Amino acid sequence: MTRFIPILILFTSLNLNAQNDSIFVRQIFDEALENGQSYENLKVLCKSIGARISGSKQAEDAIRWGRHLLKSYNLDTVYLQEIQIPNWKRGKAEKAWAENSTGEKLTLNILALGGSSSTNGLLKAEIVQVKNVDELKALSSDKVKGKIVFLTEAFDQKHINTFSAYGHCYPLRGDAPNEASKLGAKAVVIRSLATPTDNFPHTGVTEFEDGVKVIPCAAMSTQNADDLVKWLSNGKVMLNMELDCATLPNATSYNVIAEIKGKDNKIITIGGHLDSWDVGEGAHDDGAGIMHNIEAMRILKTLNYKPNHTIRCVLFMNEENGNFGGETYAKLAKENNEEHILAIESDRGGFLPMGFDVVGTTEQLATVKQFETILYPYDLLKIKEGHSGVDIGPLRKYYPEMIQMGLAINSQQYFNYHHSANDVFETVNKRELELGAASIATMVYLMDKTLK
Amino acid sequence: MTRFIPILILFTSLNLNAQNDSIFVRQIFDEALENGQSYENLKVLCKSIGARISGSKQAEDAIRWGRHLLKSYNLDTVYLQEIQIPNWKRGKAEKAWAENSTGEKLTLNILALGGSSSTNGLLKAEIVQVKNVDELKALSSDKVKGKIVFLTEAFDQKHINTFSAYGHCYPLRGDAPNEASKLGAKAVVIRSLATPTDNFPHTGVTEFEDGVKVIPCAAMSTQNADDLVKWLSNGKVMLNMELDCATLPNATSYNVIAEIKGKDNKIITIGGHLDSWDVGEGAHDDGAGIMHNIEAMRILKTLNYKPNHTIRCVLFMNEENGNFGGETYAKLAKENNEEHILAIESDRGGFLPMGFDVVGTTEQLATVKQFETILYPYDLLKIKEGHSGVDIGPLRKYYPEMIQMGLAINSQQYFNYHHSANDVFETVNKRELELGAASIATMVYLMDKTLK
Repeated sequence: MTRFIPILILFTSLNLNAQNDSIFVRQIFDEALENGQSYENLKVLCKSIGARISGSKQAEDAIRWGRHLLKSYNLDTVYLQEIQIPNWKRGKAEKAWAENSTGEKLTLNILALGGSSSTNGLLKAEIVQVKNVDELKALSSDKVKGKIVFLTEAFDQKHINTFSAYGHCYPLRGDAPNEASKLGAKAVVIRSLATPTDNFPHTGVTEFEDGVKVIPCAAMSTQNADDLVKWLSNGKVMLNMELDCATLPNATSYNVIAEIKGKDNKIITIGGHLDSWDVGEGAHDDGAGIMHNIEAMRILKTLNYKPNHTIRCVLFMNEENGNFGGETYAKLAKENNEEHILAIESDRGGFLPMGFDVVGTTEQLATVKQFETILYPYDLLKIKEGHSGVDIGPLRKYYPEMIQMGLAINSQQYFNYHHSANDVFETVNKRELELGAASIATMVYLMDKTLK
Repeated sequence: MTRFIPILILFTSLNLNAQNDSIFVRQIFDEALENGQSYENLKVLCKSIGARISGSKQAEDAIRWGRHLLKSYNLDTVYLQEIQIPNWKRGKAEKAWAENSTGEKLTLNILALGGSSSTNGLLKAEIVQVKNVDELKALSSDKVKGKIVFLTEAFDQKHINTFSAYGHCYPLRGDAPNEASKLGAKAVVIRSLATPTDNFPHTGVTEFEDGVKVIPCAAMSTQNADDLVKWLSNGKVMLNMELDCATLPNATSYNVIAEIKGKDNKIITIGGHLDSWDVGEGAHDDGAGIMHNIEAMRILKTLNYKPNHTIRCVLFMNEENGNFGGETYAKLAKENNEEHILAIESDRGGFLPMGFDVVGTTEQLATVKQFETILYPYDLLKIKEGHSGVDIGPLRKYYPEMIQMGLAINSQQYFNYHHSANDVFETVNKRELELGAASIATMVYLMDKTLK
């Protein structure tokens, strides 16, 4: 029987490890649910600071607040990382209405897209309706020239994960203004990228290629868009529109960074983005992600965890309109010869966490999936290949062998709030937010112990 | 190689079956998400009928509405099943305030518990504070006699599933008034059985043993309870309380039943409860469950599914204060020699469905778990042993070999709303409700095809 002894020892040691891990993970969740600070902290960010687009006074306030909060948790170091940011402003005038051939008017709830130009006073032109960018690109320039292009595609409700529906409609916002401008359009309006049919317009960034004229562009509420489609089925409709947005010269801003030092110099990055759109309170996008990560740091520190690798929490600036925070962070990491082994992002709201999406090889996915049993009692049930996050994305350009993860969150309600005035603190549930924070802390702990 | 052929055929046939099942399940979800009627139907139930405790005019309206709605879906039969119900009324006066020795007053938001007696005018007595029923039962009668017992235990936030926290606190509401009465207490007030600390009181049923005097009892908001505990730490506090509830003689009411006939006479029951508490709109408890089941019937009918066994949808009456609907249904099933093989209940709200709890043998659990792969794309990730539902529970007394299931739903927010004025339509998300309906239809389809 002697030959079985080493195997028994190995089994016992594995079981003991798993048992110890389970006990520590239970402590993480207890700390989050009993002594959690994420919900009260999110309230401050949302209610005392509010919407915080890069370049705004509120964004600067958020940087100061985030740095101060992280310092209060006695982490090993807290510092700012300087970045350059684009500086787009909405301006004050923002209105639109449609007018049919009988003179009837339909007021539209709109929000300029980030990157839009001003209309320089009132702009009036005929609407040309297309479903999506493919239909737009199939039009000849004489059909579009001097007109306002209206894109109407709605979310496909059949997608179980609403991020998938969003991905399909993304070109309406991301690409249509650029394509319409190339065809000579005066402006672009789109049906908001949102799940429900309601009266909230949803903004977001759009991008123009170098050399393409920047034109005015805006999103209208999904209800308005559906109403306007009905109007257009009865004949010609003129659109009146006024925006006075402007793009100012690039400005200086900061990522906020905090660390718990490891036994070696390898780095595990966790993060979300501190900036938000300039409407609502950026509660789910991405106040919740910021709280998940700050709270994960607080929990690991409170439980006196001594990591093998440095745990670095980054509150990225400018995810929403440029990703200069994420790009700069990755570039400087490489320049400083840092060794990055893992990055985890939370940027899908403060709803129920359901698992982790993994970016990596099959073997790396298997490394994460070995924790399924430990995660099961916390309803973190889906560990699969997927998307990580916009902020940490650039790191993989320089560290193609690192593992990345995105916290997977119940997506059903996210696009009711995303980029709209509706994204406010009251829509976040305390326990769901706390479970997200504990999920991040748990994955950091498990991976820190596992990765060499 | 000849000997492998039968195995190949078997594999191909299994794969084809799984493939066909996957296609049909996809159709179920498409129908729910694209053409769903559950959300608009729930709006009618909540806004046009509202709170509907057994014995109320609203409960009778709900029965008429449910029958009419089911008839509109051209099912094989729709009928009412007569039951007797207890008939408790809240009455009009309902108020309470605390008074300390310096004459300060603290107004308390209260709701009488179902089954409470009237105070017959204003009741005033000293508060005796205990944490829970164990502490109460340890008191001698002279400490309790003539006083108002105040039970203070809060939800243990460490439970990941909030139904588990609720279960631990349940005796505060279910047992404490009976125990306090036996010790001579004048009345009982409890900290509401709820997750958050806020100003909503949460009602629910309490029960007195035969021969024990029915006394006044009420729940106060969790915030009020915490405030009152602070007051009591500074000395004696008197409680003033007025309730004029009454228990009238039993009355007649109905379960609403609809069927899609099967190829044999075996019965699969799906259901939820049509009654609610008499505050709020019973949106999550259990309007959502009612919609899950009615919509599941509509979907199966729309997709022209011809079941092997009869699919019977039951809108149970009186789950909240007596379960006479569930008890009568089970008793009549047995008396009529019906053959029941499966029952599924939805009574945990309209939030994100996450899987199914199974009541049955290890083999029966394995029968359900074989569908995990088919359910995975719909985030129905947790098939485990668990609790089914109060309405279908009595069936198992007569059919101990049947399988029962409860639709498992994200529980994090449920006890923010449960049994309170806060349980309104606006707190239900359309897509989450629709996913629940599709989940029920899917499980019915898969089990109907599988069970002999």
